[in-house]
Amino acid sequence: MAEFQWHNPVRTVFGTGVLDKLPELVGRRRVLLVTFQSAHATGLLARIKGLLGDRIVDIIDTVATRPELSDVIATHMRIWDERKAEVIVAVGGGSVIDFAKALCCQPESGHFLDLLTHATQVVRRLRVIAVPTTAGTGSEVTPFSIIWDTRDSNQAKYTLNNSRLWPEAALIDPELAMSLPKVVMRNSALDTLAHALEAIWNVNASPMSDMLAVEAARIVLAKLPIAWRFQGNTKARVELARAAWLAGQCLSQTRTALAHAISYPITIKQGTPHGLACSWSLPWVWRQAAGVDPARDMVLAQIFGPEEKDPIDRLEDFLHSLEVATEPFFWGLTEADMARSAIEYLSKPKGHNFISKGLRMP
Amino acid sequence: MAEFQWHNPVRTVFGTGVLDKLPELVGRRRVLLVTFQSAHATGLLARIKGLLGDRIVDIIDTVATRPELSDVIATHMRIWDERKAEVIVAVGGGSVIDFAKALCCQPESGHFLDLLTHATQVVRRLRVIAVPTTAGTGSEVTPFSIIWDTRDSNQAKYTLNNSRLWPEAALIDPELAMSLPKVVMRNSALDTLAHALEAIWNVNASPMSDMLAVEAARIVLAKLPIAWRFQGNTKARVELARAAWLAGQCLSQTRTALAHAISYPITIKQGTPHGLACSWSLPWVWRQAAGVDPARDMVLAQIFGPEEKDPIDRLEDFLHSLEVATEPFFWGLTEADMARSAIEYLSKPKGHNFISKGLRMP
Repeated sequence: MAEFQWHNPVRTVFGTGVLDKLPELVGRRRVLLVTFQSAHATGLLARIKGLLGDRIVDIIDTVATRPELSDVIATHMRIWDERKAEVIVAVGGGSVIDFAKALCCQPESGHFLDLLTHATQVVRRLRVIAVPTTAGTGSEVTPFSIIWDTRDSNQAKYTLNNSRLWPEAALIDPELAMSLPKVVMRNSALDTLAHALEAIWNVNASPMSDMLAVEAARIVLAKLPIAWRFQGNTKARVELARAAWLAGQCLSQTRTALAHAISYPITIKQGTPHGLACSWSLPWVWRQAAGVDPARDMVLAQIFGPEEKDPIDRLEDFLHSLEVATEPFFWGLTEADMARSAIEYLSKPKGHNFISKGLRMP
Repeated sequence: MAEFQWHNPVRTVFGTGVLDKLPELVGRRRVLLVTFQSAHATGLLARIKGLLGDRIVDIIDTVATRPELSDVIATHMRIWDERKAEVIVAVGGGSVIDFAKALCCQPESGHFLDLLTHATQVVRRLRVIAVPTTAGTGSEVTPFSIIWDTRDSNQAKYTLNNSRLWPEAALIDPELAMSLPKVVMRNSALDTLAHALEAIWNVNASPMSDMLAVEAARIVLAKLPIAWRFQGNTKARVELARAAWLAGQCLSQTRTALAHAISYPITIKQGTPHGLACSWSLPWVWRQAAGVDPARDMVLAQIFGPEEKDPIDRLEDFLHSLEVATEPFFWGLTEADMARSAIEYLSKPKGHNFISKGLRMP
């Protein structure tokens, strides 16, 4: 067994109805609430207001899917000018939680962009309490925040990765995800699956991340088809929430790999939801990873069980059964595009996460 | 699935040779080194001195097995009077790490005993970097410190349990345990097994603690017999170190249960090593736990696999094969003593950890 590290300081409270513990986690602190627009219409915002009352001193309820750099910069400037809150409560999917984490550090220079480039010191931070309303992002248990710049010609994705971004607590109430549209539920669960598999074909994998990743992948494979057919199946949805949490912990240690790298240009160009964009290519990426390292193959084999001779084919069947196409051409890509995208990724420092250092074309 | 919580903020660095990372974890801080007397003779102390050099400003190298209250009080007073160090490095078994944790908080009143009774505020603390030299204690990943008072007629065991006691880091180098006497190695691994089982028949169990506990128990059952017969088997010892770490994390969330309660009077009266004292009764305690909760039974069944019809008998065979007697009379106890001890425990607040609320005598 090679050396490994493990560190995830987030306090997790998990269970149906645990949203009611939010006041206890907040204590007497003044709250900046970060949430999404439709939290109004669904009644969620009213419920949070009922729980926190006048402890809420500021609300940002306009976070869009994929935090936009210009929004982050403007909001960051405002909240650190006003300095009203003592803690941030983020109620939403990955975009909302990432947005909240992007706000949490006050840079000495006063400029958010200096945080991205590490050109400044952090002089103060607000802790984030993350309350996910989807089951997949994992952002509630990672120190990462992904920000998108899609407004100018230089379309790009940025990642803040900083130990100050660890949420103080993750309050995971699976009930909050129950009213999600079916397709959003599926995409979130596929994000979990991508986090799990990318943590296994990863040079940063450890016995601990392997154990959590295999469990998370198995849960998605067993429970997502049930939740997809019978959307009201609470038991399956609770399990999917737990899988998201497990895979998020893996992600927090290993970071992502090739399937995520393939997803970002697709999301930027086509607006494809993140969970979908990073999962359709999993069989393709698994074919690249297979045979590279016998120890990794053995962990991957645990997902469908060692008696399954064609796990990659089974994963493709699984995705097809959920109406997810796994063929590059469906995503507007040729095999040559895939190879180019993969080779470009593998040449970057982040590309070293993936266990395979070269491409083996089919 | 019932509600659960999970929180373990310790940074773990695990692997053969990772002791060399100690300077990196310490940084420029001035070190109080806490260790055991024979760390001189084994050369370990010299190695630590070589690594940390003049960053070591104070050494306590006389920690005995089971930290004695009077020693803790005297040492605590001295180090907080002198205030030389900025971080504590604890190199040793559970006793050394517990001793270091007992030192780490400065009480407003100045009196250690006020920390035990929560009669004072903590005004300052030193973080602890724990470097275990046995594989079993789990203390490197818990916020507990157990202190013994064996010098007067009122023999007792005290537990400090405080979020300030979480070690900053656990540096687990399995090589450090390789030179342990065979019996100490066995007792430490049995401590791991006790932590794992006690985390399962526990009202605070969660899907996460279950997963880690089953893995830890399976490792001990598979690897301890190998390490017992072939002491130099490095691979088995590395796995046992990982099992100790996994079970320690479970312990940190669930705390202990009936087998530990049975062990303390035996340790106080007979000086029986902790790992031995809390493991010989595991089959007896399992019989008390069996049938109480079908969900717990299912988790316990995973340890030997569902095809094993008599897991408790197999656990007894396992302990006997390691020369551990499982009969109460061997430990100076009658069945009536066991019942009395168990009933007394179950009547205490801590007794509520155990899933069974009454006793079922054989």
